[in-house]
Amino acid sequence: MPIDPHAAIEITALRWVPEGAQGLGKDLRVRWALEEAGLNYKVRLIGGERPSGYLQDQPFNQVPCLRDDTVRIFESGAILQYIGEKSDELLPADPQTRYSAIQWTYAALSSVEPFVQFRSLLNNVFAGEEWAEPAKPTIEHFARLRLQQLSDRLGDKQWLEGDRFTIGDLMMVTVLRIAQRSGQLADYPGLAAYVKLGEARPAFRRALSDQLAVFAANQPQPEGAAA
Amino acid sequence: MPIDPHAAIEITALRWVPEGAQGLGKDLRVRWALEEAGLNYKVRLIGGERPSGYLQDQPFNQVPCLRDDTVRIFESGAILQYIGEKSDELLPADPQTRYSAIQWTYAALSSVEPFVQFRSLLNNVFAGEEWAEPAKPTIEHFARLRLQQLSDRLGDKQWLEGDRFTIGDLMMVTVLRIAQRSGQLADYPGLAAYVKLGEARPAFRRALSDQLAVFAANQPQPEGAAA
Repeated sequence: MPIDPHAAIEITALRWVPEGAQGLGKDLRVRWALEEAGLNYKVRLIGGERPSGYLQDQPFNQVPCLRDDTVRIFESGAILQYIGEKSDELLPADPQTRYSAIQWTYAALSSVEPFVQFRSLLNNVFAGEEWAEPAKPTIEHFARLRLQQLSDRLGDKQWLEGDRFTIGDLMMVTVLRIAQRSGQLADYPGLAAYVKLGEARPAFRRALSDQLAVFAANQPQPEGAAA
Repeated sequence: MPIDPHAAIEITALRWVPEGAQGLGKDLRVRWALEEAGLNYKVRLIGGERPSGYLQDQPFNQVPCLRDDTVRIFESGAILQYIGEKSDELLPADPQTRYSAIQWTYAALSSVEPFVQFRSLLNNVFAGEEWAEPAKPTIEHFARLRLQQLSDRLGDKQWLEGDRFTIGDLMMVTVLRIAQRSGQLADYPGLAAYVKLGEARPAFRRALSDQLAVFAANQPQPEGAAA
């Protein structure tokens, strides 16, 4: 198991999040990549109140960050590339294959995530706002456009560039899980199958299980319960 | 001048966009990076109706794509990295400096752009929707949070990591120009100064001038004007 308190690589993760957000936190991307690459890591857990100085590590107060003996970095995309460079599988050295993987990592974060994330927020974080319901058709239109384009491009391939799973697929699957959680993949069976294929990878299952185990161990006690 | 019809590098750009979008198109990022790196390039102009087969180059039907003798890639972030790797200035080889630049490229696209872009859309693309006005306070709250955090991190430094301008700054400046165009930087003089510093670079000015020259040359004729 790659989790090792003496590992050189340390990542940050949240101690607990509400059930609706469990399994979607961005440390999952990094845990998954580390599992795929077979790299040991340790986890620094942080809470809703960030530890003093955390903004130095992550200026937007988010998780994850990664540090080891060489770098201190944030942003899950950059971290996936860093891990990918330690694994010729996840981020091959051949220029075209390498840049295809990098372009899909960016595409997941920049051309897909903002649209499906915003559509998802209308169901949860923004659900109480008077404008959330009337905004849905327009936002859904844009989210569906991107999902359709992605579905068309994936076609019946296994992964985005064919037979090889790269950091681009890893990132895209985690982004599509946001869409799936809010019911956005119902009309895209090809994308749903692609997510399922990603989730079936042993490295993904270990990463998810490790993230969820942290939340289970740090479940807030109900008001009035014995400590 | 790096524009050269016989150059090995080809990028795609739009032939014309309405005035409110001029100077914000994503090919500007790539033109700017190519100018900084001193690399010659040619431009393949495309219109509102994309040429047949364009989805093969860019699955989301956007610009820019880049192709040369080595790669065919899309996503401006991936393209900036590719150009950066040809220039030790824009993307230094030292691991920490390199990954700091890459993390800021991702941060611009993933932690800043979606928020300021969405706030901007409420003023233009979504302005006619009944929910656009009531949505503004909430969306603005999130956009301002990210702008404040970025402003705090930049502090009084010249560039995000100090004295050295990298692809991370290049991407961040172009993202902040979206915010500025829609009045979102009024309370962030440090970010406005940072944008101004970026825009003062000769490479930026050449890139912007070349982008605008295309729009000027392809201005649609008013209905009924002589051909």
